[in-house]
Amino acid sequence: MKRKEAIQQLIKELTLEEKAGLCSGLDFWQTKPVERLGIPSIMVTDGPHGLRKQKQGADNLGLFNSVPATCFPSAAGLAVSWDRDLINKVGVALGEECQAEDVAVLLGPGANIKRSPLCGRNFEYFSEDPYLSSELATSHINGVQSQGVGTSLKHFAANNQEHRRMSTDAVVDERTLHEIYLASFEGAVKKAQPWTVMCSYNKVNGDFASENKTLLTDILKKQWGHDGFVVSDWGAVNERADALEAGLELEMPSSNGEGDKKIVEAVKNGNLSEDVLNDAVERLLTVIFKAVDEKKENAVYDQEEHHALARQVASESMVLLKNDEQILPLKQEGKIAVLGAFAKHSRFQGGGSSHVVPTKLDSVFEEMEKMSRKGKVSYAEGYRLDSDEVDEQLILEAKELALQSDVAVVFAGLPERYESEGYDRTHLRIPENHQQLIESIAEVQPNVVVVLSNGAPIEMPWLENVKGLLEAYLGGQAFGGAVADLLFGKVNPSGKLAETFPKKLSHNPSHLNFPGEGDRVEYKEGIFVGYRYYDTKEIEPLFPFGYGLSYTTFDYTQISVDKKEITDKEEVDIHVTVKNTGNVSGKEVIQLYVRDVDSSVIRPIKELKGFEKVALEPGEETTVTFSLDHRSFAYYHVQLKDWVVETGEFEILVGKSSSDIMLTETLKVESSVALPVHFSRTTIMGDIMAHPQAGPVLQAELAEIKKNSPMMEAMEDEGNQSEMMVAMMKYLPLRTMVSFNEHFTENNLTELLKKLNDSTLQVVSN
Amino acid sequence: MKRKEAIQQLIKELTLEEKAGLCSGLDFWQTKPVERLGIPSIMVTDGPHGLRKQKQGADNLGLFNSVPATCFPSAAGLAVSWDRDLINKVGVALGEECQAEDVAVLLGPGANIKRSPLCGRNFEYFSEDPYLSSELATSHINGVQSQGVGTSLKHFAANNQEHRRMSTDAVVDERTLHEIYLASFEGAVKKAQPWTVMCSYNKVNGDFASENKTLLTDILKKQWGHDGFVVSDWGAVNERADALEAGLELEMPSSNGEGDKKIVEAVKNGNLSEDVLNDAVERLLTVIFKAVDEKKENAVYDQEEHHALARQVASESMVLLKNDEQILPLKQEGKIAVLGAFAKHSRFQGGGSSHVVPTKLDSVFEEMEKMSRKGKVSYAEGYRLDSDEVDEQLILEAKELALQSDVAVVFAGLPERYESEGYDRTHLRIPENHQQLIESIAEVQPNVVVVLSNGAPIEMPWLENVKGLLEAYLGGQAFGGAVADLLFGKVNPSGKLAETFPKKLSHNPSHLNFPGEGDRVEYKEGIFVGYRYYDTKEIEPLFPFGYGLSYTTFDYTQISVDKKEITDKEEVDIHVTVKNTGNVSGKEVIQLYVRDVDSSVIRPIKELKGFEKVALEPGEETTVTFSLDHRSFAYYHVQLKDWVVETGEFEILVGKSSSDIMLTETLKVESSVALPVHFSRTTIMGDIMAHPQAGPVLQAELAEIKKNSPMMEAMEDEGNQSEMMVAMMKYLPLRTMVSFNEHFTENNLTELLKKLNDSTLQVVSN
Repeated sequence: MKRKEAIQQLIKELTLEEKAGLCSGLDFWQTKPVERLGIPSIMVTDGPHGLRKQKQGADNLGLFNSVPATCFPSAAGLAVSWDRDLINKVGVALGEECQAEDVAVLLGPGANIKRSPLCGRNFEYFSEDPYLSSELATSHINGVQSQGVGTSLKHFAANNQEHRRMSTDAVVDERTLHEIYLASFEGAVKKAQPWTVMCSYNKVNGDFASENKTLLTDILKKQWGHDGFVVSDWGAVNERADALEAGLELEMPSSNGEGDKKIVEAVKNGNLSEDVLNDAVERLLTVIFKAVDEKKENAVYDQEEHHALARQVASESMVLLKNDEQILPLKQEGKIAVLGAFAKHSRFQGGGSSHVVPTKLDSVFEEMEKMSRKGKVSYAEGYRLDSDEVDEQLILEAKELALQSDVAVVFAGLPERYESEGYDRTHLRIPENHQQLIESIAEVQPNVVVVLSNGAPIEMPWLENVKGLLEAYLGGQAFGGAVADLLFGKVNPSGKLAETFPKKLSHNPSHLNFPGEGDRVEYKEGIFVGYRYYDTKEIEPLFPFGYGLSYTTFDYTQISVDKKEITDKEEVDIHVTVKNTGNVSGKEVIQLYVRDVDSSVIRPIKELKGFEKVALEPGEETTVTFSLDHRSFAYYHVQLKDWVVETGEFEILVGKSSSDIMLTETLKVESSVALPVHFSRTTIMGDIMAHPQAGPVLQAELAEIKKNSPMMEAMEDEGNQSEMMVAMMKYLPLRTMVSFNEHFTENNLTELLKKLNDSTLQVVSN
Repeated sequence: MKRKEAIQQLIKELTLEEKAGLCSGLDFWQTKPVERLGIPSIMVTDGPHGLRKQKQGADNLGLFNSVPATCFPSAAGLAVSWDRDLINKVGVALGEECQAEDVAVLLGPGANIKRSPLCGRNFEYFSEDPYLSSELATSHINGVQSQGVGTSLKHFAANNQEHRRMSTDAVVDERTLHEIYLASFEGAVKKAQPWTVMCSYNKVNGDFASENKTLLTDILKKQWGHDGFVVSDWGAVNERADALEAGLELEMPSSNGEGDKKIVEAVKNGNLSEDVLNDAVERLLTVIFKAVDEKKENAVYDQEEHHALARQVASESMVLLKNDEQILPLKQEGKIAVLGAFAKHSRFQGGGSSHVVPTKLDSVFEEMEKMSRKGKVSYAEGYRLDSDEVDEQLILEAKELALQSDVAVVFAGLPERYESEGYDRTHLRIPENHQQLIESIAEVQPNVVVVLSNGAPIEMPWLENVKGLLEAYLGGQAFGGAVADLLFGKVNPSGKLAETFPKKLSHNPSHLNFPGEGDRVEYKEGIFVGYRYYDTKEIEPLFPFGYGLSYTTFDYTQISVDKKEITDKEEVDIHVTVKNTGNVSGKEVIQLYVRDVDSSVIRPIKELKGFEKVALEPGEETTVTFSLDHRSFAYYHVQLKDWVVETGEFEILVGKSSSDIMLTETLKVESSVALPVHFSRTTIMGDIMAHPQAGPVLQAELAEIKKNSPMMEAMEDEGNQSEMMVAMMKYLPLRTMVSFNEHFTENNLTELLKKLNDSTLQVVSN
């Protein structure tokens, strides 16, 4: 409270120029201080899964010259853990490192939806599903902010590709925007209140995100109640005054005074209200002083401890996708060929602003050596890291080693040059030399396990030829130890895909419209993103959303619903019992999807509305409870600009993945919203007939009219015999009563319409 | 000329009320006469593939009470002939029947695109491809009109479903509208000048087709040069004066004077210019007097001759889809089980306004009996016609008969209640009892041939279990004879699918958006209709567009292109040599598709741009020539509102079907259109750099600026090493030069922009 008043006082004392100055950076990473009033500068720094704090004296951008920090798995990996607590722990660790490095705000997490697997920055994002994404972003934010360090939820919004990211216009229909692309941010903003939200570079429906008042003010601040400030992505501001007016408080980096000047001019010439500027400064100072207040002096963190956490997290951030004949976990007695340069030079993070200089780095090969008997693990390079070209000599060496071994573990995936901030992939293939290595080894060795390092889905034409497949994503600096833990069964894999792996790129829902034409990309697939599309289109994916194997087995034994009928204002609890029926302890992600059985609007087959991760010892059983509320059943109603539940039956589908539903229940939800109705001369008879009040009115009127219309009588006679006639009647606009009956005039029509509309109004007033 | 003047004179003599009166029907089927001025009434009548002229005294709608007329195959069947001449012959025959029945205008053909296989009226439409559809509609119109009888090309436009057809709004982006839905009409209007065009019931992008000035006046009359009149679909007029203003001349049926009154009022109160009314009357009288002038007194036609033509046409309007082990043609020696009620009660036409009372009707069973040895053909009913329910007794009888026979021919498909004007299907299944019959027979008899009667694609889960499959569509009154001709090899099948048969309904491109929400259907699949979608999405269909088998084989031996480089103002000839390499004479449809190898706009993999049907004796070879022009390579440019060819390479793909390309050539087309360019502060560097004039200007400027910017130098240094940096530079908006260089101001930016834009203007003026 005292702070609030002090800030109000400061705003009064600040000059116009000083206030404008606060609305942009001092340099690349710091806000501007106002020393005469004791307003400090705070530092913000890149990196959702690790700090990228510039070293002193480095050039501003200098991506490869930052202080060492723990590199955790990137978001694509974290997401497959489906583990809110685990991601919270990562957030806590990141917060500790920020305190130690004097960083006030960490620029992350990213909550953009994976519209296409090609998006170069997908490795920094969580999921194709907005509910999963927003839940995990919430955990991340809560973790970091629990340490008195802010976050910047990014990139708001509809920034789903790198191609022309600073100029393209994402054209997204309003319902899709809310149900998919905004929902991924909405939950995190409401539940975790990130200190800042970062606007994206692109346009959204015609306006730059940085100048998009609908997004930044109407939705983010007003509808969702965000009380922090909005920061531009670096260089995202186009016209500074327009951006401020739209709700963008902080331009980053420094605009060398140009942006500040424009704000001052706009206020002076009356184009921008000074109140808007004052509000912005209040939001800025609130966060700046919060950072000051929560700063822990002389904070340090334990690098070894964080590395150990990184290893635990990484082992939960990988997905076992195939395990034929239980080839995994590896037996310790046999000879193991470890193949592929990735085994010694792991691909453990993506390129761009999230690139971290790790405090230490595991080697997969060494970690595997440690876990197996001496001399049993050998290595061959298989391919050169810096090229896609097949090196026959390296392949030959790898084949020979594989031949002499009992099992071959091939490390492959996407090199750093394939995936980065700044550009998108154009296909889903791995490099020719990686693919050739896998295929060559599979020719000579029946026991092949592939370990993939990549930030997003790839094609796998070789899948049939290998027995084991571990999707290791970009596992951070402890990638090596984590992989070894999983391969040797020290840890039981529990990851589940947070995105669909398609058989072919062309099967992806965005394929026909990605990355768009020139500076315009239309999201014509609408709400059908990810599994929502594959399910509804019945296109079989390579691996479905939510899929992942374990070294144990789980039975889904029971489901129950607290209430079979609820109103849309009530919550309902769903209880699900799951049992570990295998021989080792393990974790299972129980997924709950909801299906609207019969909807008047287009909806996907099912949508994720709940998930819980449980750890179970062999033979252990547990019951988890999911609470579903209004939002679990609702769709976004564009006219009402609100979430609406339609009265009717809903299916609750609980399973191991989006395509492996084990238990089903149904319940009925009663809507409390009376949607507005207005009949016009072009409203069809069927719609009026279906209305509880207007229907009988029309029915009575028609009976009268029919007496005078041989035409309508004839239609009805034939209608008794033919579906066509029934359909034709139903689809007739009210106005056709004039055409089909010479005694029914336009005046009669006007009168009838009034009567019909009046009948509906009576209901609303009841 | 004399007529023209006479009509002008009449318009002067007509009262306002009389003129308004001419703009709507006298009754259901006739225009209003003005007896005092000698303006006669003319009759229009339903039926693209046969006359449906009301009997005197029947109720107006009375669908089943019309004078007998030859029932030809419906358009879905005609289309698979891919035979312009054949369809022209049908048109001539229809024209003759109209003359004999005193009908001035035949209400057809239908040129709507098959967006979804579910559309209840698909049987009346030609194809999913606009080029094929418009070519065949052209032939139909030319045939009918050669007899002095008018046509009514319908339903204009974007009427691709029956569901809520009178109220739904088809929301179609402009490029898709022109390239797919309008193109199907455009060719026919320009090449064949139908006397009338019938507007559809639905809205198109917000306006009822009947009130859609863009469609009826700007596009149809002005751009395409249509010189006939527009007639409303029966009851499609909403507000009469608005419709007249939009370009709808004739309201049908009679509005009992209400429409006329509204026109008179609108003219009197100045809301409608009398010139608009006069123009409408001129168009109406021109057609009315043309009908009068071309009326053949006492015309008759030979019913037997027309029936024979119907049989020939029907045999070309069917597609052999499967013929394993050459089960067809049927051997005459064996015992043949003819199964399914359709064999005695053919489904030969669709329901609704196109329903014809045939002059005679072949029975398949009798025709098959005639062609085989006595007593060799036997029949079992298999299922009841009037129900979907499986009758085990009937199945049993059919199985017994099949067991005793050498081959079973099962007649199945869609009963009339499944397909009709007025409503759409909701799935692609055939009735349970039809499916059960096929599956049961296949269990006991290895030699099964299925003959399908249906107006649109169905699912075929039983396909693997049968050896032969003839898609007979709705073959008209000579269906029976034609099927017998094909089954016994009297005629060699030559039909090719004019639409894709999907494996599942969900694979259809419109699936996510069909039939829409309430009164709104969005064509979000855009230009990706039919094979354009299946090709690009790599979704394997059950049978691809253009597919069809023959009893002989054809080799595609040679392709040549007259010129390897052309401008978009030149035509180019493609020569293709095809040889009959089998033992029987046959016909082949040679299909030519064009692919834009590299396009800046989203385009399908390939598009049909030519086809020729050739008849070849065994061993005979022929060379056909295709002429490609501007339109063959162009896409519709929304800003220019014109068709534009983009400079670059094009592939010419010639084959037996859309997925069976036999020969390929490439050529280069040079565009003559300089697309307008304007650079703004948000234009990205890459786009400016790529411009031949502006690129060097920017390059020079950047070299200067770089000298003062350590930031940009650093970026460039890193750019040399990293793809990310290169991409980032390319995607930077021009305005970021201000952010990245403190010596480059907003004023410098404004000056630079002027310089860049000036450089492009110099080019245009060259």
